[in-house]
Amino acid sequence: MSGPLIGVLGGMGPAATLDLLQKILQSTPAARDQDHVPVVTWNVPQIPDRQKAMAGTGPSPVPAMLDGIRALNTAGATHIVIPCNTAHRWFDELQAASAAPIVHIADATLALLQQAPGLRKVGLLATRVTSEAGFFQSRFAAHGIECLVTSDAEQDALFTPGCYAVKRNALDDGGKLLEAAAQALIDRGAERLVLACTEVPVGLQHIASPLAARSIDPTMALALSCVRIWQEGRRT
Amino acid sequence: MSGPLIGVLGGMGPAATLDLLQKILQSTPAARDQDHVPVVTWNVPQIPDRQKAMAGTGPSPVPAMLDGIRALNTAGATHIVIPCNTAHRWFDELQAASAAPIVHIADATLALLQQAPGLRKVGLLATRVTSEAGFFQSRFAAHGIECLVTSDAEQDALFTPGCYAVKRNALDDGGKLLEAAAQALIDRGAERLVLACTEVPVGLQHIASPLAARSIDPTMALALSCVRIWQEGRRT
Repeated sequence: MSGPLIGVLGGMGPAATLDLLQKILQSTPAARDQDHVPVVTWNVPQIPDRQKAMAGTGPSPVPAMLDGIRALNTAGATHIVIPCNTAHRWFDELQAASAAPIVHIADATLALLQQAPGLRKVGLLATRVTSEAGFFQSRFAAHGIECLVTSDAEQDALFTPGCYAVKRNALDDGGKLLEAAAQALIDRGAERLVLACTEVPVGLQHIASPLAARSIDPTMALALSCVRIWQEGRRT
Repeated sequence: MSGPLIGVLGGMGPAATLDLLQKILQSTPAARDQDHVPVVTWNVPQIPDRQKAMAGTGPSPVPAMLDGIRALNTAGATHIVIPCNTAHRWFDELQAASAAPIVHIADATLALLQQAPGLRKVGLLATRVTSEAGFFQSRFAAHGIECLVTSDAEQDALFTPGCYAVKRNALDDGGKLLEAAAQALIDRGAERLVLACTEVPVGLQHIASPLAARSIDPTMALALSCVRIWQEGRRT
């Protein structure tokens, strides 16, 4: 086969990986199997916990992530995406080990945000690792968009337990906790929410939260990037 | 990583592949990411149409399927599953090229059917290629279970257009056509339906068909096999 082959470094978590794969499928104009985006997915969740690693309470996830990057390159992936915002904390190390370019989730998200002109203030729902790495805030600031984040109290009481609930497939509980964290950002003036942890859209969609309509989903942004890469590449 | 790694030869079609991955995820008792089944998926749908190949109106799908089998073995898959009943027409050629054992979808289905003792008659909803290959009927007959199949007229008017509708993501239309084909087998005395084309459970679930409750889903049977392989392998 020639043309693009999308490689997905998944497993962080496995539900978020399938959410990306569904969004790629649903976003592809296709009349038959052969029109769909070719994707090879390394959905191997035996990767040490990213938040615990950064908190110094667990081993580094990097060696396991590099195993996946190598497997995807060997399988012939021409572009790689990672449906885990937190994992982008290690973007530079992963890209250095990958012949295939990795599409950064914050670049894909910024491209989608810019389709709503005049945005001044967005709320970022993200793990502490993602917030502290700052890769969303720096990109948004460069385009005049201010970025609100959750308070420490909201993070501990709502966001973190909500994410772990989704990871253990307790989608009702997880969705409600994450919705409460999202509402707090809206209450402080966020015009849109960036659901910058892949568990968040899974949880909000499960409880059919009305806040989903005011949200930008970086997983969907990545999916649209994959579809665009496929459609541009198969033409040439 | 040691222990099992499930390889999925997907793409036939891509929606059915994601259906299998969802069923593996939902069938796994898991409290955290790391408890989930590790899966590498080759979901590359640029495989020539299987039904057209057997009808003599298109090229063979075997070379493209062998590319996937090789990629999965190189990635370290210890067991391979194929979420496409029709593709099992070429099972022997694929297994001959694979160091990793391929779990046959009809073996997985028979194991699930045998959990309902006393079954005498099942209806098989399958492509012509699958029905004519006979790998379901021979296994069922060996256990005293008679197998009803759709008539030629039902196949042409309901089953085949229903499958292709699901493949192009027209899930409402596809679900209704496939439900009508299923009802015809129930009317002729089938006690259970075997949804032996991976588009069928996708369509019936989408329209919330009551016939789903009287059905055995080979995709679910494969998913349960994957979970069992993972749970037995990680223990040792």
